[in-house]
Amino acid sequence: MTPIYDRVALIGLGLIASSMFWAMKRGGLAGEVTGYARSAETRATARRIGLCDRVCDSAAEAVEGADLVVLCVPVGVMGAVAEEITGALKPGATLTDVGSVKRDVIASVGPHVPKGVHFIPAHPLAGTEHSGPESGFADLFQNRWCLLVPVEGTEPAAIARLRGLWEAMGSNVEEMDADHHDLVLAVTSHAPHLIAYTMVGVADDLRRVTDSEVIKYSAAGFRDFTRIAASDPTMWRDVFLTNKDATLEILGRFTEELFALQRAIRTGDGDHLHAYFTRTRAIRRSIIQAGQDTDAPDFGRSKKSP
Amino acid sequence: MTPIYDRVALIGLGLIASSMFWAMKRGGLAGEVTGYARSAETRATARRIGLCDRVCDSAAEAVEGADLVVLCVPVGVMGAVAEEITGALKPGATLTDVGSVKRDVIASVGPHVPKGVHFIPAHPLAGTEHSGPESGFADLFQNRWCLLVPVEGTEPAAIARLRGLWEAMGSNVEEMDADHHDLVLAVTSHAPHLIAYTMVGVADDLRRVTDSEVIKYSAAGFRDFTRIAASDPTMWRDVFLTNKDATLEILGRFTEELFALQRAIRTGDGDHLHAYFTRTRAIRRSIIQAGQDTDAPDFGRSKKSP
Repeated sequence: MTPIYDRVALIGLGLIASSMFWAMKRGGLAGEVTGYARSAETRATARRIGLCDRVCDSAAEAVEGADLVVLCVPVGVMGAVAEEITGALKPGATLTDVGSVKRDVIASVGPHVPKGVHFIPAHPLAGTEHSGPESGFADLFQNRWCLLVPVEGTEPAAIARLRGLWEAMGSNVEEMDADHHDLVLAVTSHAPHLIAYTMVGVADDLRRVTDSEVIKYSAAGFRDFTRIAASDPTMWRDVFLTNKDATLEILGRFTEELFALQRAIRTGDGDHLHAYFTRTRAIRRSIIQAGQDTDAPDFGRSKKSP
Repeated sequence: MTPIYDRVALIGLGLIASSMFWAMKRGGLAGEVTGYARSAETRATARRIGLCDRVCDSAAEAVEGADLVVLCVPVGVMGAVAEEITGALKPGATLTDVGSVKRDVIASVGPHVPKGVHFIPAHPLAGTEHSGPESGFADLFQNRWCLLVPVEGTEPAAIARLRGLWEAMGSNVEEMDADHHDLVLAVTSHAPHLIAYTMVGVADDLRRVTDSEVIKYSAAGFRDFTRIAASDPTMWRDVFLTNKDATLEILGRFTEELFALQRAIRTGDGDHLHAYFTRTRAIRRSIIQAGQDTDAPDFGRSKKSP
């Protein structure tokens, strides 16, 4: 396959960047791929495992001559990194990112984008609870959505090229505007993550149930929460701080509903509970029909040992 | 293998009962297994798929002559079912249940247990989001915990025999008292389920994000919640109504913590968020070390199609 981009630079070498590298290499989608990470330890790991064709010691060096520059750093430092590389960006290059929040990234990166560089924010909806340069794998984006959030006036050919890369890495691509993206993600990802973090923290705090009991009896339910709550702390801190409004709005709605269900429990209103649970069950069915999950009854549990 | 019980009666033929049947038959752990379900449709399904050696048309008929009677009905009707079968229980038989709540089951079933019958409440911590007679499979209890909650004065030999059955079906067995059981489960299962139900309901209610978007972009996070929120509505209504105190206590603690995290988001206190998320990540590690989950990065996701 002819490469989609001759030179790609990955800034930040965590789960997403390393998965992009392996996916691009497997598909022959990029010529040379350079990489940079702020931590010397991460750069050393990348060199050791062959992550990137060339690991550079500065972000500017990595982006030099690149046709595509991908910012794969936590949302909170996107602006600072963009400022650092702005002088090294090649005219005609595309600058993109993989951040989970889009309005804030556009506000912080946008001002540093030189004329003649195409800035196309993106967000692959893919991840695991693992992080770091060794956590990536080429299949991460397979059958997952990638949302492109182009700013007004972006050249359609540049968007089509970036879309082509994500599709070639296995993703289904859609475009939407930044505000809508941030609200959709607040519902489907950001609020659920905060809730899972909270529940795991509560369990850990409780004095009358020991940690070892919580861990031992972490049946379905809590176990799934702990998986969500094991995601990268820095990434998620930045997500909540930068998608503050939408996340707080959804959490407000959540609290209202939770109070209504708590009241139903307190007053013994079984009909209300039953109707609510019947409705949520139907939503699950739709998700399975939409192919976003499997209904296999063991759902990966069969690999476990006692 | 010599059967552990010659005659077993399963009252209620859903996920747990059907899984017990297949596990007992595979292991040769029971002689004849009879079954009863209140709904004629369920009984017909059971007969069609060969679930139980004999499907009876009344609970009393099913328990006649049984050495072990297992109540596999929703917690809210345990007492009524116990009352229905009390006259048919064989002296020396063991009566047990599989309910997710223990204090309420002991209070409602206990008064109907005749002298000479061993009543040993139990709770296998195993399940899937599916329900009904066709959802069971012999491996469901493999490497899962089963908690026995014997009431005071129960004959040790009867407890040992029931423990032997659960162990032979693949479970790890522990004993604890009812109040502690109900609190531990409120933390590890009941509160997480209510929270998941709530979040899925919120997503469904939101007008500015369409249902199809919620479903389409149900990335990790929300997707896991919908799986939890797809569990049997009747079973869960009864769990919350009968484990009211412990569930409301944990939900109260949850709300407190959630408000503290919301405040940290609102005030931009990134250090608080980062420290919290780092702590919850450590808990996840402990669970993996305890063998209660796998850390495989795709966690069953690889089977999905777009």
